[in-house]
Amino acid sequence: MRWESTPPGLAKLQLRAIAELRQLFGEDAISIDDEDLHLHGYSEWSTVNCDQLPAAVAYPKSTEDVSKIAQICHKYRVPMIPYSGGSSLEGNFSAPHGGITIDFLHMDKILKLHEDDLDVVVQPSIQWMQLNEMIKHTGLFFPIDPGPPAKVGGMVGTNCSGTNAVRYGTMKDWVINLTVVLADGRVIKTRQRPRKSSAGYNLTGMFVGSEGTLGIVTEITLKLAVLPEETRVGVATFDTIRDAANAAMRVMRKGVPIQCMEILDEVQMSVINKAGGTNRVWKESPTLFFKFSGTKSGVLESIDITKVIAKDSGSTSFEFAKNEKECRDIWSARKESLWSMLSLRKDGSTDVWSTDVAVPLSRLPDIIELSKKDLDDLGMFASILGHVGDGNFHESIMYDKTDPEQRAKIEQVVHAMVDRAIEMEGSCTVPGPLKLMLPDLNLE
Amino acid sequence: MRWESTPPGLAKLQLRAIAELRQLFGEDAISIDDEDLHLHGYSEWSTVNCDQLPAAVAYPKSTEDVSKIAQICHKYRVPMIPYSGGSSLEGNFSAPHGGITIDFLHMDKILKLHEDDLDVVVQPSIQWMQLNEMIKHTGLFFPIDPGPPAKVGGMVGTNCSGTNAVRYGTMKDWVINLTVVLADGRVIKTRQRPRKSSAGYNLTGMFVGSEGTLGIVTEITLKLAVLPEETRVGVATFDTIRDAANAAMRVMRKGVPIQCMEILDEVQMSVINKAGGTNRVWKESPTLFFKFSGTKSGVLESIDITKVIAKDSGSTSFEFAKNEKECRDIWSARKESLWSMLSLRKDGSTDVWSTDVAVPLSRLPDIIELSKKDLDDLGMFASILGHVGDGNFHESIMYDKTDPEQRAKIEQVVHAMVDRAIEMEGSCTVPGPLKLMLPDLNLE
Repeated sequence: MRWESTPPGLAKLQLRAIAELRQLFGEDAISIDDEDLHLHGYSEWSTVNCDQLPAAVAYPKSTEDVSKIAQICHKYRVPMIPYSGGSSLEGNFSAPHGGITIDFLHMDKILKLHEDDLDVVVQPSIQWMQLNEMIKHTGLFFPIDPGPPAKVGGMVGTNCSGTNAVRYGTMKDWVINLTVVLADGRVIKTRQRPRKSSAGYNLTGMFVGSEGTLGIVTEITLKLAVLPEETRVGVATFDTIRDAANAAMRVMRKGVPIQCMEILDEVQMSVINKAGGTNRVWKESPTLFFKFSGTKSGVLESIDITKVIAKDSGSTSFEFAKNEKECRDIWSARKESLWSMLSLRKDGSTDVWSTDVAVPLSRLPDIIELSKKDLDDLGMFASILGHVGDGNFHESIMYDKTDPEQRAKIEQVVHAMVDRAIEMEGSCTVPGPLKLMLPDLNLE
Repeated sequence: MRWESTPPGLAKLQLRAIAELRQLFGEDAISIDDEDLHLHGYSEWSTVNCDQLPAAVAYPKSTEDVSKIAQICHKYRVPMIPYSGGSSLEGNFSAPHGGITIDFLHMDKILKLHEDDLDVVVQPSIQWMQLNEMIKHTGLFFPIDPGPPAKVGGMVGTNCSGTNAVRYGTMKDWVINLTVVLADGRVIKTRQRPRKSSAGYNLTGMFVGSEGTLGIVTEITLKLAVLPEETRVGVATFDTIRDAANAAMRVMRKGVPIQCMEILDEVQMSVINKAGGTNRVWKESPTLFFKFSGTKSGVLESIDITKVIAKDSGSTSFEFAKNEKECRDIWSARKESLWSMLSLRKDGSTDVWSTDVAVPLSRLPDIIELSKKDLDDLGMFASILGHVGDGNFHESIMYDKTDPEQRAKIEQVVHAMVDRAIEMEGSCTVPGPLKLMLPDLNLE
């Protein structure tokens, strides 16, 4: 990989920083264990990895600890890499120049739940699903839903979204304020705690999505939403991926208040069947998954409108989950799709190349159809799925990473898709491993 | 007022900049007419004004024009002040150091309407109500609704909100991308046009709300929403302002999907009666205005739940607008409340002191009750109203600006309210004229 070399002298400075950190926090608080370094600097499910690992992993217990770590790292000019869930596919926690990874393992608590303000103050290492479990009794929930292992700290860093984004927006819409440790150890709070404010610059919105490059987030106040009374899950199949994408676009244009709308191609449906987590066999054709939520009658209304639109767009079937368990099964099948795909890998040489592209809504049928054709021509095991209500979709391609010819072919297909998206006034985040050198460059 | 003096030598530099601008754009394009300068540097409805006026007003016709203006002003180090609707109450277009005001008068067009992408590209001087009128035929609308005279450019600058914010959020949630002229004339575009993107830093969110201090916005891509099928307006009265605030808080906690919820005290209701725009006489007691929107059955459901909550919170009546005209009348009464209050001024010495405070939802009944008591003790004509679903409210106090004793008393009351809000983890934007020296300081 085309990494810049580590700055000269860093190795020595790192050793001095580690020594000073150990003096302050004790030997055990700063790990230099090989396995630990590997766990924090490499991910088998990430499309993006680099050869370098962090030099050490620190485990702070408070904002004050993080501030002290930052002061020491700043003094020796040693890179710092914040780490929470480690489930990112885009190398967000890579340590290309070594340095100290700051793992928030011990900072995983709810600090304060303000039920009547509809907000909650948390530490970075709380998992979003665990958070929702812990506040369920209040009738509130945190609606941003990325991959299950994601933790709130990383979700802030990546401005993450998920299947609920079409209804609830993305991470930046749900952060009220942040406590941030700056590179030199100073601690700031971006805002007070009103739900709405236009006072001062929008620092909160600047830190969200900055991937730790502007500061290290140690405390987060999140808005909460009221749990909907009713949730129904529906599945519509189509003959072609263009028909499915068209239906999705028309649902948006009609203003149906869907909670989620996901597109999956026939390959992805077969992956779900093979993984077998849903207790039934799905038709392996282009499919839309819908989640409807709201009041009982509101949900029924939305379903009626959506059924008509789907039919007009050529749907070949429209089925609903029979009960809550089936709802959960279907949705977890969608959520686990990447892991299901990974589980199909035959040996250590197989890898999955993930991508992430968004275009204006009306261009979605075009780009999905063209990209699907490219993937088919590739002749490899590849699938398309996406958060189609936001014009956002993913290609996942299974390939033999030891085969340079395969790599070159995929690279061509992926870069063609990215170029196409940008031509359509869209954007992309992870075009593939070879572009990792530009992690902070807005490719738009 | 405590303005810093204009930097030495600026007057001469300004003259040279104006001469160069006139050479480039023609005599008429750069106004130094006294009345024009006064119109652009002073506002009779703003709580905040300063003695200084701009030295000239430029009227660009394109982004390129603005870039050239910026290049010249940058060369001579002359301040630039972007100007669109001029309806701000917080001195956002003041010219404390003179300089060139850039009025977007001629840049008021829709550049591109993308119906199927649910977005529209506009210039800064389009009025939001006019925009909605022009796109009505598409079944789409732009949901941010500040005071009627506001224009999109200023709405971006102030990260404005309005009565719809409780349902639709604020300006920053509806801007897809911005074309910005930087201080030295360079032109940037913050993002491409997908509805959702986490690529790169959130520059769009940084420019929104930066009040022209980071750059001059010349083109804006706005998200649009689908017009709801049904809209109903309801009005509930209460014995005390605390009861009304309590009811509002409980509606939020229940998750009722209201479009608007506004609180008005008995003084504000009497102002509406006096202004007489609604063809009926309202009970002059603390009141909540509701707007419900969605599908027909969804709206009925929301109304049922809200009625129960209001009754449980001590409402003394709950009435609905009988038809669309009455809906519009009621809402415009709320929208025009400031102007109604201004129209009650007796002579040139009377002024209205506006304020803007937000607190976490649960603290709203406390702060409103305490502030109301302070206002009553003041013995002046003063009212409270606010976007209560977001914990945001305004005090408006009528006073004799030539009477230093009155000023001092109001200042005390207003600052007490601001301190109280900040103690409650809230925030404020315009505490009063004397704090204008800190327009960009986040007082939180």
